Amino acid sequence: FSSKLPDVGTTIFSVMSALAAQHQAINLSQGFPDFDTSEELKDLVNVAMQKGFNQYAPMPGLAALRETIAAKVQSLYGTTVDADTEITITPGGTYAIFTAIATCIGMGDEVIIFEPAYDSYIPNVLVNGGVPVLIPLAYPDYHIDWALVKSKITTRTKMIIINSPHNPTGTILKVRDLQQLEHIAELHNLLVLSDEVYEHLVFDGVRHESVLRYPNLLKRSFVVFSFGKVFHITGWKMGYCIAPAHLMAEYRKVHQYLCFSVNTPMQHGLAAFLQNPAHYEALGRFFQQKRDLFLSLMQDARFTPLPSQGSYFQLMKYDQISDEGDKDFAVRVTQEIGVATIPVSAFYQDGKDDHVIRFCFAKKDNTLERAAERLRKL
Amino acid sequence: FSSKLPDVGTTIFSVMSALAAQHQAINLSQGFPDFDTSEELKDLVNVAMQKGFNQYAPMPGLAALRETIAAKVQSLYGTTVDADTEITITPGGTYAIFTAIATCIGMGDEVIIFEPAYDSYIPNVLVNGGVPVLIPLAYPDYHIDWALVKSKITTRTKMIIINSPHNPTGTILKVRDLQQLEHIAELHNLLVLSDEVYEHLVFDGVRHESVLRYPNLLKRSFVVFSFGKVFHITGWKMGYCIAPAHLMAEYRKVHQYLCFSVNTPMQHGLAAFLQNPAHYEALGRFFQQKRDLFLSLMQDARFTPLPSQGSYFQLMKYDQISDEGDKDFAVRVTQEIGVATIPVSAFYQDGKDDHVIRFCFAKKDNTLERAAERLRKL
Ligand SMILES: CSCCC(=O)C(=O)O
Ligand SMILES: CSCCC(=O)C(=O)O
Repeated sequence: FSSKLPDVGTTIFSVMSALAAQHQAINLSQGFPDFDTSEELKDLVNVAMQKGFNQYAPMPGLAALRETIAAKVQSLYGTTVDADTEITITPGGTYAIFTAIATCIGMGDEVIIFEPAYDSYIPNVLVNGGVPVLIPLAYPDYHIDWALVKSKITTRTKMIIINSPHNPTGTILKVRDLQQLEHIAELHNLLVLSDEVYEHLVFDGVRHESVLRYPNLLKRSFVVFSFGKVFHITGWKMGYCIAPAHLMAEYRKVHQYLCFSVNTPMQHGLAAFLQNPAHYEALGRFFQQKRDLFLSLMQDARFTPLPSQGSYFQLMKYDQISDEGDKDFAVRVTQEIGVATIPVSAFYQDGKDDHVIRFCFAKKDNTLERAAERLRKL
Repeated sequence: FSSKLPDVGTTIFSVMSALAAQHQAINLSQGFPDFDTSEELKDLVNVAMQKGFNQYAPMPGLAALRETIAAKVQSLYGTTVDADTEITITPGGTYAIFTAIATCIGMGDEVIIFEPAYDSYIPNVLVNGGVPVLIPLAYPDYHIDWALVKSKITTRTKMIIINSPHNPTGTILKVRDLQQLEHIAELHNLLVLSDEVYEHLVFDGVRHESVLRYPNLLKRSFVVFSFGKVFHITGWKMGYCIAPAHLMAEYRKVHQYLCFSVNTPMQHGLAAFLQNPAHYEALGRFFQQKRDLFLSLMQDARFTPLPSQGSYFQLMKYDQISDEGDKDFAVRVTQEIGVATIPVSAFYQDGKDDHVIRFCFAKKDNTLERAAERLRKL
């Protein structure tokens, strides 16, 4: 048996969450909230279950949910997307990303991926026979060096993956990044995969430059969103993909034979819940407060925060504490201090180690307080 | 943009369900029940949601659910499988099948598929760069011609896909089929993918010859099961895969980056529900009564049933009614008589047409009565 992914181990998220459980550590590693979702949303799902909406949803997703998404896109980004042909509901954002890659990438196709990168992108490309072309984001502010991107494009380049708000760094792409991307993608006829699962989690008055705002870019893009990340239901595995009809038609050919359809009662619940914009409009403020609380609690700790303007992650340098590698450091902090985090080197294929770890601040205030108290001891 | 699946259209299940809806026809096409699942199961899921089990489940699935499955496998098949390393929960059987193929099949690998075949197998192989090698089941009893199988094996053959109880024909593999398969798979070092999503739906006292009963075969197999099909929750998209640890380790590398994990509250609900064997032991009788009712209702209709010993499908020849092709016939019967079915030619890549259509009898008795009344008019 010859493995398609010989170099892949268990994802760092499972490793650190398991280590956290083993040591009863406070888990600021894997990205999920430790508070519950809305009672209203749970009740809406339960009502759908009780009403008997328990058989296959339509392959692209429930029409009511797709229409609510289209209305949200219109009101947030001023963009018209067709609910029938341009939106597909998926079992989570990770699945939506895989499916876009499986739709487009075959043997030898090159895909540009910026590092640090969410850890599914590279294996997704490899499983489909593609070739990841890795470009570092400039440390320590993690911006994209577009001249470097241009220099890496070949005749085999097929896709560029972007991610904003960015995991793990919390950076937000700017208007000029999107303009550069549009220019390059058009010039070289590239597809774009835009991972926007933290869509609403943007701070400090910064605007989320969704690809949905850029019609010429959208023409060649798959844009991925997550209900799990924004509605505190990471365990429900619900997300969606938006793409122009000609790309979505191909995407659905893969999706209809990969998983066919997505959880019906949860789609009903989300369709009703999403109709109230208040349910997502307050999210930026809500998570900004978490970030600010965490930063203020950590002010006297010997960590140096790197700027985070979005997502639910905060990077910290720890070079005033230790010169260990970040994996060793993260493991030791879990074991000795009882706080689990993610070593950022796990987001680099070559394990590049800037002595930075990632904290997830999507936690109860009290959790953040207890964690900071422990971390200040370092 | 060059499509990976240029010849794929919309799956026949979506096409016929949509046509049924359009003509307000009784829908005996796509395989799902028109009755609801157990109140107890829905309540168990709701309790889990209300308790706050709404964040990521562990990547391989909830330990409690995997352990209950292992206990069930032990009691039904006398086989010990390790819950930790040999069972993975998936968002449905279709996903479980895709993931097995994505794990094992790369450019140029040949996969033996018997036709008529569930319509995801061929596109799953193609998306992964493999080559489907199609072998017809012998019409009209749809048995496997093992001599023909031997003649199709080459040095590139990597996997054989079997499916019992079989969709669409309702045939059940026999002991000697499994013995032949074991012999051939060992001789040529082949992997086996066994689609057993209709596991409990076996009639007439016939025994389900699960690959799980055959230790030497299981060593090289992925065995796929569905909660949706057996617990009347096709819309929840819940299933699982069993494989020996060395294969499951590779499978999980793909799964962890494809979808990562599966719906948490539904896993909790199923873990509790599955602990009562009564919930699956009665399923064979329950569906046999449905089949028998449907057959007796159709006795005076001008259809000729082919034998069905499992699944929730019944094939019928219609050559006493019409010499149309089965797609035309199925469409016309939907439009004119108001009963939707599946043309069996949709399960053949070359559209082979034996003038047979498939009825799903997983329906309320009253639905079957109303459908038969209409069908008797033909
Ligand atoms: C799918 S588990 C990883 C969750 C996550 O997005 C993260 O921690 O980065
Ligand atoms: C995933 S839709 C198809 C349902 C089914 O198994 C069938 O009708 O054969």
